[in-house]
Amino acid sequence: MENARPLPSYLVQRYRGWKATSYANNESWYRRLSDEGQHPRAMIISCCDSRVQVTSIFGADQGEFFIHRNIANLVPPYQPDGNQHGTSAAVEYAVTALKVAHVIVMGHSSCGGVKGCHDMCSGAAPELEKKSSFVGRWMDILRPGYERVKDIKDPIERTAALEKEAVVVSLENLMKFPFVASEVKEGRLSLHGLWHDIGEGTLEHYLPEKGTFEKV
Amino acid sequence: MENARPLPSYLVQRYRGWKATSYANNESWYRRLSDEGQHPRAMIISCCDSRVQVTSIFGADQGEFFIHRNIANLVPPYQPDGNQHGTSAAVEYAVTALKVAHVIVMGHSSCGGVKGCHDMCSGAAPELEKKSSFVGRWMDILRPGYERVKDIKDPIERTAALEKEAVVVSLENLMKFPFVASEVKEGRLSLHGLWHDIGEGTLEHYLPEKGTFEKV
Amino acid sequence: MENARPLPSYLVQRYRGWKATSYANNESWYRRLSDEGQHPRAMIISCCDSRVQVTSIFGADQGEFFIHRNIANLVPPYQPDGNQHGTSAAVEYAVTALKVAHVIVMGHSSCGGVKGCHDMCSGAAPELEKKSSFVGRWMDILRPGYERVKDIKDPIERTAALEKEAVVVSLENLMKFPFVASEVKEGRLSLHGLWHDIGEGTLEHYLPEKGTFEKV
Amino acid sequence: MENARPLPSYLVQRYRGWKATSYANNESWYRRLSDEGQHPRAMIISCCDSRVQVTSIFGADQGEFFIHRNIANLVPPYQPDGNQHGTSAAVEYAVTALKVAHVIVMGHSSCGGVKGCHDMCSGAAPELEKKSSFVGRWMDILRPGYERVKDIKDPIERTAALEKEAVVVSLENLMKFPFVASEVKEGRLSLHGLWHDIGEGTLEHYLPEKGTFEKV
Repeated sequence: MENARPLPSYLVQRYRGWKATSYANNESWYRRLSDEGQHPRAMIISCCDSRVQVTSIFGADQGEFFIHRNIANLVPPYQPDGNQHGTSAAVEYAVTALKVAHVIVMGHSSCGGVKGCHDMCSGAAPELEKKSSFVGRWMDILRPGYERVKDIKDPIERTAALEKEAVVVSLENLMKFPFVASEVKEGRLSLHGLWHDIGEGTLEHYLPEKGTFEKV
Repeated sequence: MENARPLPSYLVQRYRGWKATSYANNESWYRRLSDEGQHPRAMIISCCDSRVQVTSIFGADQGEFFIHRNIANLVPPYQPDGNQHGTSAAVEYAVTALKVAHVIVMGHSSCGGVKGCHDMCSGAAPELEKKSSFVGRWMDILRPGYERVKDIKDPIERTAALEKEAVVVSLENLMKFPFVASEVKEGRLSLHGLWHDIGEGTLEHYLPEKGTFEKV
Repeated sequence: MENARPLPSYLVQRYRGWKATSYANNESWYRRLSDEGQHPRAMIISCCDSRVQVTSIFGADQGEFFIHRNIANLVPPYQPDGNQHGTSAAVEYAVTALKVAHVIVMGHSSCGGVKGCHDMCSGAAPELEKKSSFVGRWMDILRPGYERVKDIKDPIERTAALEKEAVVVSLENLMKFPFVASEVKEGRLSLHGLWHDIGEGTLEHYLPEKGTFEKV
Repeated sequence: MENARPLPSYLVQRYRGWKATSYANNESWYRRLSDEGQHPRAMIISCCDSRVQVTSIFGADQGEFFIHRNIANLVPPYQPDGNQHGTSAAVEYAVTALKVAHVIVMGHSSCGGVKGCHDMCSGAAPELEKKSSFVGRWMDILRPGYERVKDIKDPIERTAALEKEAVVVSLENLMKFPFVASEVKEGRLSLHGLWHDIGEGTLEHYLPEKGTFEKV
């Protein structure tokens, strides 16, 4: 692998600052985490978006959350076809090996992936329709959500509704994984849906009895 | 979706603390991030492991890193076959839409996914060989790495070497994506490989001229 | 312009070292910064003093802070009189064109400019009173601050208090710029006051509810 | 001053990292700098642009450079009219009080201020012509430079030439300050002009015998 480069110096500097403060002050905890392995309380499925940091919002200490991040915080349908499914592997590992108590799916405002899905489904982004578009094929997961919001007139409202559908569709897909459904039914696992507004700093959770998102 | 539950109260409490402090003190920055969209400097591909928090190690503030996290920080081979490839979609979005300047792959010590791959490849984990094992099929990506370390005698050394192979294999796979290779060649993108020891708090980077990892 | 001279060789050497290391390792980032322009998160107004390096204290990497440095980190009153106001131009550019989210004013210990203001206001530096003294006229900006500290008995305490007044007076003046005040009111811009002790390495921030500086 | 806010937490964290590493490792030097005052070797006049960090390029240690940064690294004409001239105050302090041996003016590629001056002088930016435009009035300093480049046909070449004129005009203005001219004549002070290409990482210095900039 001749193409890699050393770590940029500004990150070396930051790492050293972390080592001399956060690590130094918590060394015994890090050593214990290393010796005993992880026992996370929850899995969080969140977007790769650089503006959404669940670790910051939830004051996540090392060891507390098993975090999977992908484009638009999506869980694909259950497809045990022998192909590579990174998200399904993460869910399987969290639920069957780590036995987390919660799976939390968190969406967010101005999501580029959801915007792309919206444009693709409404015919405005033909390049995303191509077989070779990884983003397009990934966002196909959200097509059922688009069907449910496509009649909303206002385009801004429609996109925001689709961001929330990315959470709901993922929760629906999660329940199709047999190992998720059985744990939920036996009361050992609960699922949670969140939507975060980056600019306002607000957080909404999905309330199943109402079928809507409400501010926490 | 009747199975979701409200956000656990301990997380509601932490969110409220974050809103009253971090958000309140940076409100203007969050609003700007929301208005202008993200301009992250780097993409980081890291493990879902709850003990590995790159945002903490690199003092990452909101907006700086586009972060994809999956089991064992793997990048699969380039397969534009029309199937869903979440990691490939994240790489495509970061490099072609966000035009990040760096892609950093960070592995870590005592990685459960790598351990599973090791056991599977050495015949000790037949359950991971099944077509229906999402973790097993995902860890197939690392099989070429296992071939390169399998003759290491000491099992602990062998597993650690395989953790570093997870980084090297991913960097190799990254270079097979045409849009990655062309940006690297034109000097607009650089790739970086890291390995982090959770217990010791150390960080090693891959130095291509030596073909080994060294402490930063 | 016949009076310029080539760059001193010790600086040529350092530049070449930087080019071969920091630049080479971050080439892709520098190219992107050049192509896309700057999107700094904050403006920092700091002193020219060679001992105060905010880039070092805040691990500032290229592109993150728009930095204006003048004698005693002062912002003059709002005077749209058609004359040349370099500091006001820098503030105007940062807030209206770059739309920074924060303006941070950082003062420091043993500030020569503040010392000069103190001596001038207390009658001990008649040469600074002259119309032709650029430093004297510049330090006139801090005269309202001197009025607030002049009754402090201990001369060392009095000068230190005046250093902090240089920050407070600047923050007050900033709020008189209409484009600053409106952005602050709309939550898109926040102002911050800091004072740094060079010898002790400490940092204090201004807390408005208390009206005092406290260690961070 | 009720409008200030505490320091954003991400900067608090970085400061603490700096304190525990850079400061801790150089504590004796910082204490000495504090006790003995500054004795900088050179004054650098550089742009506020967040992408230009002379401290990084020249490996500047604390205490080595007295740094003034303003929009487009300009020195205004000598005007001892009793008004506030921040740049002139900085030059006066560096040359007469600190007795620096070098004054270095460093321009750079894709300078927003120079671009604004170009647009204003060519009639394309009437808003900068207003008496109330601080940026416009500040960029008036560069008008004599525009006259010398306005006949260059290619607009990209013309703007780049104007960036270099910002350096030359500043060097010319510097020589009009009596205390600068006399020190230069007596061989105690030398002036230097630089232009830095952000994307390419190159550095050019002004060679008076040729009247042009050349790569160092």
